[in-house]
Amino acid sequence: MAGEFQIISKIRERARPGERVVVGIGDDAAVIRHEGRTDLLACCDLMIEGVHFRLDWMPRHLVGRKALAVTLSDVAAMGGIPRFALVSIALPGAGPVEGAEEVMRGIIEMAEASGVSLIGGDTSGSPGALFIDTSVIGECARGRAVTRGGARPGDRVFVTGSLGASTLGLNLLQRGHRLDQFIKDEVSLSHPNMILRALLKHLSPTPRLEEGRLIGEASVATAMIDVSDGLSSDLSHILEESRCGAIVEAGALPIADCVKTLAAAGMKIDPLGLALHGGEEYELVFTVSQEECDRILELSKDFDEPVTMIGEIVERPGLYLSRDGELEVITPSGYEHRI
Amino acid sequence: MAGEFQIISKIRERARPGERVVVGIGDDAAVIRHEGRTDLLACCDLMIEGVHFRLDWMPRHLVGRKALAVTLSDVAAMGGIPRFALVSIALPGAGPVEGAEEVMRGIIEMAEASGVSLIGGDTSGSPGALFIDTSVIGECARGRAVTRGGARPGDRVFVTGSLGASTLGLNLLQRGHRLDQFIKDEVSLSHPNMILRALLKHLSPTPRLEEGRLIGEASVATAMIDVSDGLSSDLSHILEESRCGAIVEAGALPIADCVKTLAAAGMKIDPLGLALHGGEEYELVFTVSQEECDRILELSKDFDEPVTMIGEIVERPGLYLSRDGELEVITPSGYEHRI
Repeated sequence: MAGEFQIISKIRERARPGERVVVGIGDDAAVIRHEGRTDLLACCDLMIEGVHFRLDWMPRHLVGRKALAVTLSDVAAMGGIPRFALVSIALPGAGPVEGAEEVMRGIIEMAEASGVSLIGGDTSGSPGALFIDTSVIGECARGRAVTRGGARPGDRVFVTGSLGASTLGLNLLQRGHRLDQFIKDEVSLSHPNMILRALLKHLSPTPRLEEGRLIGEASVATAMIDVSDGLSSDLSHILEESRCGAIVEAGALPIADCVKTLAAAGMKIDPLGLALHGGEEYELVFTVSQEECDRILELSKDFDEPVTMIGEIVERPGLYLSRDGELEVITPSGYEHRI
Repeated sequence: MAGEFQIISKIRERARPGERVVVGIGDDAAVIRHEGRTDLLACCDLMIEGVHFRLDWMPRHLVGRKALAVTLSDVAAMGGIPRFALVSIALPGAGPVEGAEEVMRGIIEMAEASGVSLIGGDTSGSPGALFIDTSVIGECARGRAVTRGGARPGDRVFVTGSLGASTLGLNLLQRGHRLDQFIKDEVSLSHPNMILRALLKHLSPTPRLEEGRLIGEASVATAMIDVSDGLSSDLSHILEESRCGAIVEAGALPIADCVKTLAAAGMKIDPLGLALHGGEEYELVFTVSQEECDRILELSKDFDEPVTMIGEIVERPGLYLSRDGELEVITPSGYEHRI
């Protein structure tokens, strides 16, 4: 929403963190010091009909699945393991039970796939939109949470998986493409149909939980965030919190196959722009000191998809794109990725 | 909402609790086993414009205050101490920043008054109503959470404070009374004006945090719940989970002074009905074994208001009212306490 960062920054100023709050408002998740060898992580995310999704674009069980997925992604972005979830749902109109059941089916599926226990929640009628808020409690080894604030000049910037497909998927939905064009039983992210792949990346994102956990356990990243607003915006959050800048190599960006293929087939899209600014990818962007780069490449052999080194942290503040030997400033405003 | 209990019961069937979930869906808060000597408590509550409140009845900072208060009350009802809060807010229309600031002011005030750290949240635009979801993480000594399931025949039933004022306050709002009839600086729950007291009980409830904590620490209650739906409904939840019944003494019910006074002054209200079925009181109802009754009375000397013994747990299922020597069945449907 317009003003969201303003609100958060005001709250951050005024909410006094307690002595056990290691990381408060303003990172992917809060970090709480507790007894024992683990810190607790806690975060929440809203999914609102008409703001974040449209029910004529997305079956209810995928709405539920994505609502939880995006919050789990925040725990992954701290290098932690999500453990418990609370879910609040407000449903409009008549027949709330059936609608709620479909949403809950998606939430329960995502919870089970992630090893997360659904421990509570609240339900209500809604005077208008379908409204979901998911809260997740996770854990990481004491003092090991990977914040946005630890990147240092010389560190390399990495990203998991590939970029650009989610906003392409949104774009395809806006152009009239729908999931039910495809036979439902055959859908998967490796489906040969590139349109379907893009739709699925947008409608049914998979948070990088295993990757986040392994990166956290190995203490190999100096900073990390998930790509929810877009690489340029989210990497900029790391740069602000770490008080440094970054140069991203245009040629190094892992542009999603479906983006490249559909662009090559003549679809009017800007692959580099989608990769740089497209939101809701839920890939992890993280920084690694030069000495640790071999370790992250070794570690990533266990990841579902390769990680890619896309740039370097520099002292000079700001985000820069290196293309054909030239440096240009990237404005982190990004694409509008709302519906 | 219609069907809320159905949805919760379905989710409860399907959501597999993890091994560390001591109490899952269906109590005031979930109980999570963690390392060390404390268990974690977690819960969330929705507050939605047009469902739970009206902005022409209630200034935004009280909306924020109450949104957090009701969730804190759930932690109190487990005998725990609330520690951390997450807040998600969706704001409709233009000027979200100002509206959000007022809501946040109330939330921050409630958090500070309760010793709770605001650790995170999410904000969004809303296509319709103002929508708030608060999640609270609390703690209690390991194994000491007071669930709804421990009441035994012979136990006595107690309630904190007094009953009936909140639904009376709602009733007064519906009749056109407003907070701003009164000079704002003078408002307090001990205000001599009985209309103001009822309005404040409804619009600005104070969760019984100290009482809940002391009851929990003393391990003196066998079961506990907070009065959100109404005494008859909420006590019935204890009876269902504990598989027993209860007899409530009509003459023992602590009816709020404002209810008694306004009834005596000729206002057409049913004091007993308000006390039995009125919701959103956020008083604590709890059961205590006969041997421990002296301890709870001793303990309650530190409470803001006295506790009252209102009845007894019996083997025979159901909720009964004892009045003038006669027993009648109480149907826990309660008053409609929505706006």
